[in-house]
Amino acid sequence: MIGSTRVGIVGGGPAGLMLSHLLQVAGIDSIVIETRSREEIEQTHRAGILERDSVRLLVESGVSDRVLREGHEHQGIDLRFGGVSHRIDFQGLVGASVWLYPQTDVFIDLASARERDGGDVRYGVTETAVVDVTSDRPGMLFTDAEGVRQEVRCDVLVGADGSHSMTRSTVVDRKDYFRQYPFAWFGILCEAPPSAPELIYTRSERGFALISQRTDSVQRMYFQCSPDESVDDWSEDRIWAELQARLAGADGFTLKEGRIFDKTVLPFRSYVCEPLRYGNLVLAGDAAHTVPPTGAKGLNLALADVRVLAEVLESAVLKNDKAALDSYTARALDRVWKAQYFSNWMTTMLHALPDASDFDVRRQLAELTAVVDSEHASRYLAECYTGWPTP
Amino acid sequence: MIGSTRVGIVGGGPAGLMLSHLLQVAGIDSIVIETRSREEIEQTHRAGILERDSVRLLVESGVSDRVLREGHEHQGIDLRFGGVSHRIDFQGLVGASVWLYPQTDVFIDLASARERDGGDVRYGVTETAVVDVTSDRPGMLFTDAEGVRQEVRCDVLVGADGSHSMTRSTVVDRKDYFRQYPFAWFGILCEAPPSAPELIYTRSERGFALISQRTDSVQRMYFQCSPDESVDDWSEDRIWAELQARLAGADGFTLKEGRIFDKTVLPFRSYVCEPLRYGNLVLAGDAAHTVPPTGAKGLNLALADVRVLAEVLESAVLKNDKAALDSYTARALDRVWKAQYFSNWMTTMLHALPDASDFDVRRQLAELTAVVDSEHASRYLAECYTGWPTP
Repeated sequence: MIGSTRVGIVGGGPAGLMLSHLLQVAGIDSIVIETRSREEIEQTHRAGILERDSVRLLVESGVSDRVLREGHEHQGIDLRFGGVSHRIDFQGLVGASVWLYPQTDVFIDLASARERDGGDVRYGVTETAVVDVTSDRPGMLFTDAEGVRQEVRCDVLVGADGSHSMTRSTVVDRKDYFRQYPFAWFGILCEAPPSAPELIYTRSERGFALISQRTDSVQRMYFQCSPDESVDDWSEDRIWAELQARLAGADGFTLKEGRIFDKTVLPFRSYVCEPLRYGNLVLAGDAAHTVPPTGAKGLNLALADVRVLAEVLESAVLKNDKAALDSYTARALDRVWKAQYFSNWMTTMLHALPDASDFDVRRQLAELTAVVDSEHASRYLAECYTGWPTP
Repeated sequence: MIGSTRVGIVGGGPAGLMLSHLLQVAGIDSIVIETRSREEIEQTHRAGILERDSVRLLVESGVSDRVLREGHEHQGIDLRFGGVSHRIDFQGLVGASVWLYPQTDVFIDLASARERDGGDVRYGVTETAVVDVTSDRPGMLFTDAEGVRQEVRCDVLVGADGSHSMTRSTVVDRKDYFRQYPFAWFGILCEAPPSAPELIYTRSERGFALISQRTDSVQRMYFQCSPDESVDDWSEDRIWAELQARLAGADGFTLKEGRIFDKTVLPFRSYVCEPLRYGNLVLAGDAAHTVPPTGAKGLNLALADVRVLAEVLESAVLKNDKAALDSYTARALDRVWKAQYFSNWMTTMLHALPDASDFDVRRQLAELTAVVDSEHASRYLAECYTGWPTP
């Protein structure tokens, strides 16, 4: 079957679905293809912290206001070091909050909105390929969930197919900026009440730990580990002993334990692709960049990408101004590089670095002290964390 | 000859002389010994940027107000990268300035004030030693400028004898925190008019450069080089070509050249000694710590040390409360570690790092962009540069 649309979107995660939604608002047809089934994505638990502008985008573009009803507004975070927690009060410092709202729920909202609005999203496709990306009518080839071979031609193709992006590999003249970190995060889900109302970013001699939340009875926690750590080597007792040791302190904080029902090792790397345009293909979200999780920027960058991309595509498709596509790389990457810098800053300030000398360890503690002691520095961190304004 | 005083000060640089001055104001006798002659120190050109509180200390303690008349108030600095200068407006951001006033002049003012006030400063001594530092009456042994062997006993000994400190070596249980950087600064003095009214901290693909000033007709400039660089390998033409290349840009900035009459390679390292008290010996200034020059903190830390130390010695000597000496380490090192962190931040943000990947280079540019784009970040940098409040 041969079909056509204005914008072909490879990848039905938050970036692809959000873009499709924004394009429809602008009166532009699109088709989204996704290899996973909708149910599979809805059942994959992924954490999420939404910047203020990410929440606004979901609500104001008409996707859903569920984040405001069911998400948890966090008006700050704790930086914990030397056994004491120091609150960074986002509202007091910069008048902004972030929302704890899992990426899984962002997907559920977007998928429902696409269904509600009659969006064309094809889940469960196989044998996907993109062709003729430098031509005027690039195409997506795939076999649909019913087993029928499909070809969709479009004006512009969008690669929003995640960090293992197939579309990215067609960008032959790209430059890959890459950084591998010498550690990973060991993540757990456990049945326990929250130990704190907001996230606690912890620096200890034993390494980083992050205490996060999910619901009133399920909690998310992470601790820095070796990249080749095996979850099988970590019993519940060993995990709790490690987390308790990293959170130990003199300020009365108590880490509440519970049955651990999920253990994963999260890779930790930075990646940026440049340019984001190749002919009539553009990349967005994880296909274009990866950030380490320390700054909670991954999902927010994906949404920021497509907010810019929707504007650019409006010019490219409705006004037939394909040169507008060229502005996308610079506009999107400005924020991406700031996020890379911020994520790297948070990472190096809070993690035990394998080659750190005693001098480096003291300098790291001095940086944390300087940041919490200085209102200017605290405001800056709050500004980065809650999100930069959209250009 | 055997003499005695309340405080024996080894080292007659700015730290030693300033302390002696402050002690006299508090009614405490001291004797300062210094291996160099006064003339020799007065003829050694050393650059200097004074924080707001360093200027206040000189003026308000009655040393001299010459800095206000002959120094140059700098209300900001330029951060230059990508060929464009971005001003960090200290006055506008945090309501503070720094003063360009050479360390040589600080010494001249202090030495004059000591002479004016009848301070006991012995220049040109040889064969210096300290003895019995853990006893109640430690001593300084030396041969004075007239060749007479002297022994001075005191309540407390102060080691303010610079980065190659002899007194420090007697602190047997100390921990040395050390960092060697993989580069140095090539410094020049030249006969030229100023190229700018304030300092220009420059990041270029070729490495760091700093455009500073001394007088209307003499300028100080630095550029990052290899630690084993030889000044003989650098002709005037080669130096100017390198500086011009690093300052090149699209904003009309012109670097004015002139005859170069001084060339030096400055070492680049960080060092902190801990503790700063050993028995009845305390360390101050470069004897206690070294910072790389990027943050312009060296002289300011020395003055901040002795401001704290004068208070501590008042308790220790006048109230015979030697336990007060114990508070000195923590009070002084809080600022020292912040300065180490700040100097390291400025250094890593502005220098070409030998092992930097393409990712690191882009992340560095993103950090500079983030800092100049964010008023909060700019305020924070301004606060660090103009100096933290005295605890």
